[in-house]
Amino acid sequence: MNKYLQYDPWSIIEEGFQENKQLASESIFSIGNGQIGQRANFEEFYSGETMLGSYIGGIYFPENIANLNKKNGYSSNSEKIINAPNWSSIHVRLNDEKLDLATWDVKNFRRVLNMREGILERTFEATSFKGHRIQVTVKRFLSMAETEVAAISFTIKSLNFEGRISFQPLIDGEVKNQNTIYNESFWNILQTKTEQDVSFLWAQTRKKDFHFCAALSYVLYKNNEHLNINPTKIEKEKVAGFSVGTDVKIGETVCLNKYIAITSSLKHSRDELTEYACNLSLASRKKGWNQLYEEHTKVWNKIWSEMDVMIDSDLSAQQAIRFNIFQLIQTYNGNDERLNVHPAGFSGEKMNGATRWDTEAVCIPFYLGNFNHNVARNLLNYRYLHLPKAIQNAVKLGFDKGAALYPAATFNGNESVNEWEQSFEEIHRNGLIAYSIFNYIRYTNDYNYLIECGLHELIAIARFWQQRVNFSEEKSQFVLCGVTGPNSFDCNVNNNWFTNYIVVWTLKYTIESIEKIKKLDIEKYEKLRNDIQFNNDEIAEWNNIADKMYFPVNNNTGIILQQDGFLDKYKIKASEIPAHQLPVSLNWTWDRILRSSLICQPDVLLGMFLFDDSFERETVSRNFDYYEPFTVHESAISYGIHSVIASNTAKEQKALELFLNSCRFDLDDLSCNVADGLHVTGMASSWLAVVHGFGGMSVKNDHLHFTPRIPSEWNAFSFSVMISLFI
Amino acid sequence: MNKYLQYDPWSIIEEGFQENKQLASESIFSIGNGQIGQRANFEEFYSGETMLGSYIGGIYFPENIANLNKKNGYSSNSEKIINAPNWSSIHVRLNDEKLDLATWDVKNFRRVLNMREGILERTFEATSFKGHRIQVTVKRFLSMAETEVAAISFTIKSLNFEGRISFQPLIDGEVKNQNTIYNESFWNILQTKTEQDVSFLWAQTRKKDFHFCAALSYVLYKNNEHLNINPTKIEKEKVAGFSVGTDVKIGETVCLNKYIAITSSLKHSRDELTEYACNLSLASRKKGWNQLYEEHTKVWNKIWSEMDVMIDSDLSAQQAIRFNIFQLIQTYNGNDERLNVHPAGFSGEKMNGATRWDTEAVCIPFYLGNFNHNVARNLLNYRYLHLPKAIQNAVKLGFDKGAALYPAATFNGNESVNEWEQSFEEIHRNGLIAYSIFNYIRYTNDYNYLIECGLHELIAIARFWQQRVNFSEEKSQFVLCGVTGPNSFDCNVNNNWFTNYIVVWTLKYTIESIEKIKKLDIEKYEKLRNDIQFNNDEIAEWNNIADKMYFPVNNNTGIILQQDGFLDKYKIKASEIPAHQLPVSLNWTWDRILRSSLICQPDVLLGMFLFDDSFERETVSRNFDYYEPFTVHESAISYGIHSVIASNTAKEQKALELFLNSCRFDLDDLSCNVADGLHVTGMASSWLAVVHGFGGMSVKNDHLHFTPRIPSEWNAFSFSVMISLFI
Repeated sequence: MNKYLQYDPWSIIEEGFQENKQLASESIFSIGNGQIGQRANFEEFYSGETMLGSYIGGIYFPENIANLNKKNGYSSNSEKIINAPNWSSIHVRLNDEKLDLATWDVKNFRRVLNMREGILERTFEATSFKGHRIQVTVKRFLSMAETEVAAISFTIKSLNFEGRISFQPLIDGEVKNQNTIYNESFWNILQTKTEQDVSFLWAQTRKKDFHFCAALSYVLYKNNEHLNINPTKIEKEKVAGFSVGTDVKIGETVCLNKYIAITSSLKHSRDELTEYACNLSLASRKKGWNQLYEEHTKVWNKIWSEMDVMIDSDLSAQQAIRFNIFQLIQTYNGNDERLNVHPAGFSGEKMNGATRWDTEAVCIPFYLGNFNHNVARNLLNYRYLHLPKAIQNAVKLGFDKGAALYPAATFNGNESVNEWEQSFEEIHRNGLIAYSIFNYIRYTNDYNYLIECGLHELIAIARFWQQRVNFSEEKSQFVLCGVTGPNSFDCNVNNNWFTNYIVVWTLKYTIESIEKIKKLDIEKYEKLRNDIQFNNDEIAEWNNIADKMYFPVNNNTGIILQQDGFLDKYKIKASEIPAHQLPVSLNWTWDRILRSSLICQPDVLLGMFLFDDSFERETVSRNFDYYEPFTVHESAISYGIHSVIASNTAKEQKALELFLNSCRFDLDDLSCNVADGLHVTGMASSWLAVVHGFGGMSVKNDHLHFTPRIPSEWNAFSFSVMISLFI
Repeated sequence: MNKYLQYDPWSIIEEGFQENKQLASESIFSIGNGQIGQRANFEEFYSGETMLGSYIGGIYFPENIANLNKKNGYSSNSEKIINAPNWSSIHVRLNDEKLDLATWDVKNFRRVLNMREGILERTFEATSFKGHRIQVTVKRFLSMAETEVAAISFTIKSLNFEGRISFQPLIDGEVKNQNTIYNESFWNILQTKTEQDVSFLWAQTRKKDFHFCAALSYVLYKNNEHLNINPTKIEKEKVAGFSVGTDVKIGETVCLNKYIAITSSLKHSRDELTEYACNLSLASRKKGWNQLYEEHTKVWNKIWSEMDVMIDSDLSAQQAIRFNIFQLIQTYNGNDERLNVHPAGFSGEKMNGATRWDTEAVCIPFYLGNFNHNVARNLLNYRYLHLPKAIQNAVKLGFDKGAALYPAATFNGNESVNEWEQSFEEIHRNGLIAYSIFNYIRYTNDYNYLIECGLHELIAIARFWQQRVNFSEEKSQFVLCGVTGPNSFDCNVNNNWFTNYIVVWTLKYTIESIEKIKKLDIEKYEKLRNDIQFNNDEIAEWNNIADKMYFPVNNNTGIILQQDGFLDKYKIKASEIPAHQLPVSLNWTWDRILRSSLICQPDVLLGMFLFDDSFERETVSRNFDYYEPFTVHESAISYGIHSVIASNTAKEQKALELFLNSCRFDLDDLSCNVADGLHVTGMASSWLAVVHGFGGMSVKNDHLHFTPRIPSEWNAFSFSVMISLFI
């Protein structure tokens, strides 16, 4: 854990330049608008430790891993988020000295992420080798109103310097991923071009043919007066931009505003891309900083008016829950069904930036509670559009008859993970996708989705389960061997209780859904039945499996067992682990983790969180008391989910403690790896801890319920929810 | 299965050029002398499918895999056998036409591996595009007498050609591994040099600084007369050699004999290497083909006189068992404790060419029964020399107090596997290393080894077991969670019976050995005890674990269970698998294999094979009948071990069938991957099937026992054994 940030209700603040925290700050101060985003890399040259990161939602790269492939059924590519050409770069020179915070003397450094308005601001004084001293203010935002526009304002006041201050606003295509096996560039730079007013860089990914173009224009001010100086054009092989400067005297101020259009072939045809980008950059310059900013903040104002969470009397929690909501919305706000919630948002390359089951477990409930139902529906459509690939994936793994296995991590429906423990065995994700359909419909009553899309998915998933279970003659029950449950600290186990549970639940829900659709629209049902050659024998077998599924239980204590053999594990509680061995995922070897009782994130308890109606409160409480002490919460979604359960079982103090760890997971770097990127999906679980936990919100039988409780440390807390019915 | 070879008692014969079997033939016809070896690549240029392979025992390359590393505790390198500069290359031209069997018309092709004398011979007629016809005979051997010398004789008779025939005898450093992640060359070529009589190529591995030099000299004959022609020198960046030719008329014969010295820094100082190689090549030329060959065959004659196995009335078995013995001895014959039995011998890059526990399970018994005890002792020394690294490895994995975990696969004691299922969990290898000490001593009575080396290893291994088990409160017994047993079709299981068994056995044998040494040499024992800070509390704890270890058993049937949960698996027998799905390791996905009852190689039965005295014959028989039908024998050592057990439990027909599959595993390509290399360690298990199985040989209480039985199909069989006591 590493606390170095200031508390503030609306801002994240770094006081004094924490050079050794720069990587963490780049993640924490990252900004995005749901479509594009970037780490808080400095605009100017920086020779210190940094990890460049600019990302376009929906653009990824399939890195060839055929040479490394070890298992039959692996794909030959690993898809990963791409570090895009750096559009925020503005190098600065004082005469021939290049501003560089790693080598210059820095004072009064202050970095602020203003979450209310979605702007990143940095102020500092810096002194060069030659003793030249300047005061700098840099602001940037990615417009939430026009999601292809970014703006940066770089202001320098001379404190003792007389001479030339020059700026180089650039688009820099000399970028690589940190996460690359072969250290290759993922981009072909197609063109760099600098005209009088606008400069652009046009690039293409080396595979998949995604096109990208960023164009920049600028305005230069001196003492708030617009300066019209002919710039030097920069048009290198991989870099485009301008170099422009002016002489200053002591006390004078120069400012460069950079207006960047960031466009891609996801939204425009390839042959219009450069023109569109240039026009958009020039139009943004014409519009000017103030108007762009006003349009941008208007969106944030609306968001906060609709979904702010207020916590009275706990500044640390207040700041953190807003940070969680802010980063979630920066990552995904729902207009494009091709996008999803990246686990690290736009803050790093962590986990390849691919979508995992966190979306269905914790993110969809957040979007269901805060946005028009179309946003959640887009997240559901994302999976529906991938159904054909999920069916292909199942075929590749030896299943047939229209069974589907969704990928463990994906961009476009392909499996992008090639670790068999996950890709082949961590199959409860299928159940969570089924659950998300149920969840969406109970919030929205959108049975239309069930008819048009959902039932296809449910039947394909049920068919997968039917083939994946087998009948144990010894037990005379159905069993599920070789699975990796939600607890990512175990794998290849038999009869993971959660997986067995969600299998039975899916089978039953699919049968219910079939009955429902038959009543709602028998014609569409018959068409579907015909299309996918579905017959009633399948329903009979699903009922049979649901009736005869085995569930591991400790008969002595009544505790549900995470899996067969759990009781044989070396028992150690999280509290018994010496501090220097934490986090265990970074300090213990994998085998040691596997054979210990340590739990990364809820497993049995995930079932009790999702299906809270189905368990007695006393049962939940007993299992929580048994499992939570083994849990190290090294997955970001863990604290929040546990906090909800703690609230629901009247463990008020525990619920608060877990919530605080959840919402401050990244701000206080509990995982010791925030430098690599944020844990955005975990942030949704923080919101759940407030609304479903303390607020006690639930949706049951077409009714919204609240059972609010308040931690004794708090004076008050409030939240809004939006329940958007499909009509 | 792919049969295309002829039966013969002493030779492997390919009649007619089987172009689509070339990769398989390159493996099967490979030659070696225990120090160096190579695939049966054609000497002349070949544009068809080929996998170049020339190998020097003990030279390996640590390929950097840090970018791919996923688990804490993995090493940053993967060590692999290196494809060395190709010393057998002799390009041939008829005027300007280059001989190439992939494009020329080939007739009467015959390839013979003469195992009695250890020589590879190839004859064929070939017709060029222009209609030029020649008859070719090529012979080559790697001297068993002078293990740094190879000789090749390339004879061409013109059938209709008049013109110039030229040869280019080369050392070709333009080679790569097939098994490489980054497609990089592992060699720096330091020098190529061609003088009047001799040409050499000197190279260095890009890591580890192994030096290699091959030097060649030649003699050219025309119609059996020595021709003295000034050659053209070839001295390219990565290729050295000569080009030399002569005009021929129809019916005339030219022959080039190439004498190659293949030397490395394993045996010579780096600064003398090139000189030594050149001198050795020239001395070999001076000695001449006939004398070199005579010295070479003399070694083979002695070997066959001492360790031939004769099978009367089964030509297929007769050929195959000799092939097995031949390839084993080509791979390892025991003069260098730095070498070991590569799983693929010198026939490919399979499994990186690293040493695995097959050595202790089946190879050491072969060498104990056929050679002076020093050979087996060298294989034991190999592990003893690696003990410090095994202790380091255990520390890396979180163990302490001098516990050792030997690597799953290695060249120099480092772990070269980075798959946690193996490197971290497949820990019974530790027990097999302990077993090899017991086995060696029972054959040789070499208690000196126990005092000097073995006890260090045993105590370090016992200490590892002590820390690796844990006490299950539920069972009130010790358990062993998260292991991968001998059956490589499963992993991360709890309480693998074999592993639990060998743990207990090791603990008891270590305690016995301590008692023995105390009696033999109390002073040395006290010194050891002091050196490794060993105390009697450890013995007490080992006894406690041995007394209270849990073993999984099916109480209904009395069958020993391979592991907890085995009975839940999807039950399918090998005979039920459709032919097109075999081998399952190439056709089924890993998860499907894992959750099925299929077994790759003996697991429970490995215990009954190793500790045959400790089980009632009826128990062994019952477990064999239960497990063998699930076994697909896709590991090379499986058939042979099963055959021994079948013999010992009076399953004569089954024993024969299993033996035939064992000894013909590669000749008939049962694994469908002989193209990648042979399965040399499995060949040792074929020998065991004859000697320990049909011959019923065993060593018990200082006595040699035989219980011979003969398959009804055979008239007679015979074998020799050499039991070499340490005196």
